[in-house]
Amino acid sequence: MQPHHSATEPALIRAATGKQGDGPIPVWFMRQAGRSLPEYRKVREGTTMLQSCRDPELVTEITLQPVRRHGVDAAIFFSDIMVPLAAAGIDLDIVPGTGPVIAEPVRDAAAIRALPELEPDSLGFITDSVSMLVEQLGPVPLIGFAGAPFTLASYLVEGRPSRDYAHTKALMVSEPELWDELCAKLARISTTFLSAQAAAGARAVQLFDSWVGSLSAADYEEFVAAHSSTVLHRLAERFPTVPRIHFGVGTGELLAPMAAAGADVIGVDWRVPLAEAVRRTGGGHAVQGNLDPALLGAPWPVIADRVREVIRSGAVAPGHIFNLGHGVPPQTDPTVLTRIVELVHAEGAELRAEARAAAQKESVR
Amino acid sequence: MQPHHSATEPALIRAATGKQGDGPIPVWFMRQAGRSLPEYRKVREGTTMLQSCRDPELVTEITLQPVRRHGVDAAIFFSDIMVPLAAAGIDLDIVPGTGPVIAEPVRDAAAIRALPELEPDSLGFITDSVSMLVEQLGPVPLIGFAGAPFTLASYLVEGRPSRDYAHTKALMVSEPELWDELCAKLARISTTFLSAQAAAGARAVQLFDSWVGSLSAADYEEFVAAHSSTVLHRLAERFPTVPRIHFGVGTGELLAPMAAAGADVIGVDWRVPLAEAVRRTGGGHAVQGNLDPALLGAPWPVIADRVREVIRSGAVAPGHIFNLGHGVPPQTDPTVLTRIVELVHAEGAELRAEARAAAQKESVR
Repeated sequence: MQPHHSATEPALIRAATGKQGDGPIPVWFMRQAGRSLPEYRKVREGTTMLQSCRDPELVTEITLQPVRRHGVDAAIFFSDIMVPLAAAGIDLDIVPGTGPVIAEPVRDAAAIRALPELEPDSLGFITDSVSMLVEQLGPVPLIGFAGAPFTLASYLVEGRPSRDYAHTKALMVSEPELWDELCAKLARISTTFLSAQAAAGARAVQLFDSWVGSLSAADYEEFVAAHSSTVLHRLAERFPTVPRIHFGVGTGELLAPMAAAGADVIGVDWRVPLAEAVRRTGGGHAVQGNLDPALLGAPWPVIADRVREVIRSGAVAPGHIFNLGHGVPPQTDPTVLTRIVELVHAEGAELRAEARAAAQKESVR
Repeated sequence: MQPHHSATEPALIRAATGKQGDGPIPVWFMRQAGRSLPEYRKVREGTTMLQSCRDPELVTEITLQPVRRHGVDAAIFFSDIMVPLAAAGIDLDIVPGTGPVIAEPVRDAAAIRALPELEPDSLGFITDSVSMLVEQLGPVPLIGFAGAPFTLASYLVEGRPSRDYAHTKALMVSEPELWDELCAKLARISTTFLSAQAAAGARAVQLFDSWVGSLSAADYEEFVAAHSSTVLHRLAERFPTVPRIHFGVGTGELLAPMAAAGADVIGVDWRVPLAEAVRRTGGGHAVQGNLDPALLGAPWPVIADRVREVIRSGAVAPGHIFNLGHGVPPQTDPTVLTRIVELVHAEGAELRAEARAAAQKESVR
């Protein structure tokens, strides 16, 4: 058993593991390391996305930038959802303005069986990046990052970003055994990729199932849940002190099965109030979210009110990690993000405590 | 009071008005008149979208094509969401591969106040198209079509298709009075456009709020519901025998307030089972939907099973109009749509009757 270091345990970890109580609300932003920051655009000049993700010094610098600038309570490992697939040897490119493009879309048994495994040996650049980061981050926890099997499958099968995932869904429903074979491979890749980060010092991990919100709950449970569950449970076995955050956009219908797949923290987009997400997931999970990122261009008093609303709504959860309901849009004025961090730090714990007390009173009545 | 013509009343109208019982399930497909049909691509050659929508003979031909080919139970008026805005005199274009582009995005008080009204006199081409269509359709009902205020606003404010509607939402939350002024204007335009179609013989109307699923329920209720309600209630007053269908994609969180805005039929995308949509809307509304259009490329037995599942799930509604959960994708093999129509016609009423009987038994127990 691990010793209990509550005094030094970061707010993020306390919130993720249900030990937040009336303590501080940690805050970070999905895609905080990225195009909203001029210092990011500067260091990325002249390098492709995949090159950047493979360069430990650049990964470290980019991951640290929003921590320095905003004072967020966690760093999110700078990577791309395609990095583990590229590291496994799949021929792909990230085309600016388009997104990931796979040289040979993977649509039949032969292509699925020919997919390489991800060998831990090929992840030296990940281990190096994480080790360097952990040293420089000091007490600020690093969150590891990987795409979930459905989302990885959607890129491989479609061959490029898609609006409706028609090829992916057709494979899924018409050849369920082949689909399971594909997703089992991708679950191994996700697990290996997250494990490398956790082993090198990531204190939490986030499994992104970006596009799974395109499925109904019935299809999610039949074709996807087991594979995400494999990733989350293997991580839990190997790294029992590393909490697992699980998120996808537009997943209001899927919150319960996604939480049940083995997440400690369920990420929620802006469409579902956090209190409702707590209700849907049964009350046992911490929540992460969920300010609407499209509102970051609104005047500050409007944003501040929304931030407070999110905090009050999340107070019924055993833990609340403040975040947006999706990634930071590239055109965001980064000073707004800094102000949000300041506001959550200044008022968060008190707002949460008040809302918790009010909820308790309500439930006693 | 209007005489009751139940013998000649089309299945679509019976389903929409809660008189379906164990009778036939009407079927049509959103975007059935469009790029999935080779005969459509042929007649559209050399004409722009806006030209096509303004040409009564072409509108009639395109609207009739899927009725002839598939034997659907309703025609959907071939138009574009931007047509009433263009008819009002707003400078815009529909750019192939991009979508609607507004010459001057509408983002401040001056621009909103300068927006023209839609004069019924400028809708002669609509009256002509609908009249011609109604004559040629005979007993098959025509469904009129318009965009709802939020979706029209999103195009005007963003100036082009958007992923996150950031400008629209910023205006909405930061200048709510100005937003209301804009939406009140757009509600008048939608009402005028739908009224012209109903007056010329459309037997039902569908108010499309394509992008409203980007909002939380709280924002929908605060900023949008009243404006959609204005359109739906004015239509109901002027054309009490013309049922109103209301649909948006990704609106699982909004079904109750959208239905309450004054719809007879609530359109449901594929993420929410119809039975759950009935529960969320209180049981008083007919439902339309909701086969996942991304599955139209799956093998026929899979599609057939899904069609039967949708019918069984919709049986608890007082009326069910079979449809997809969103528009027909352009790459769809149209023979699949014809087979779906045949299947719904062959098995629909019996499947629905069985499921209704089972549900009744369940509720008695």
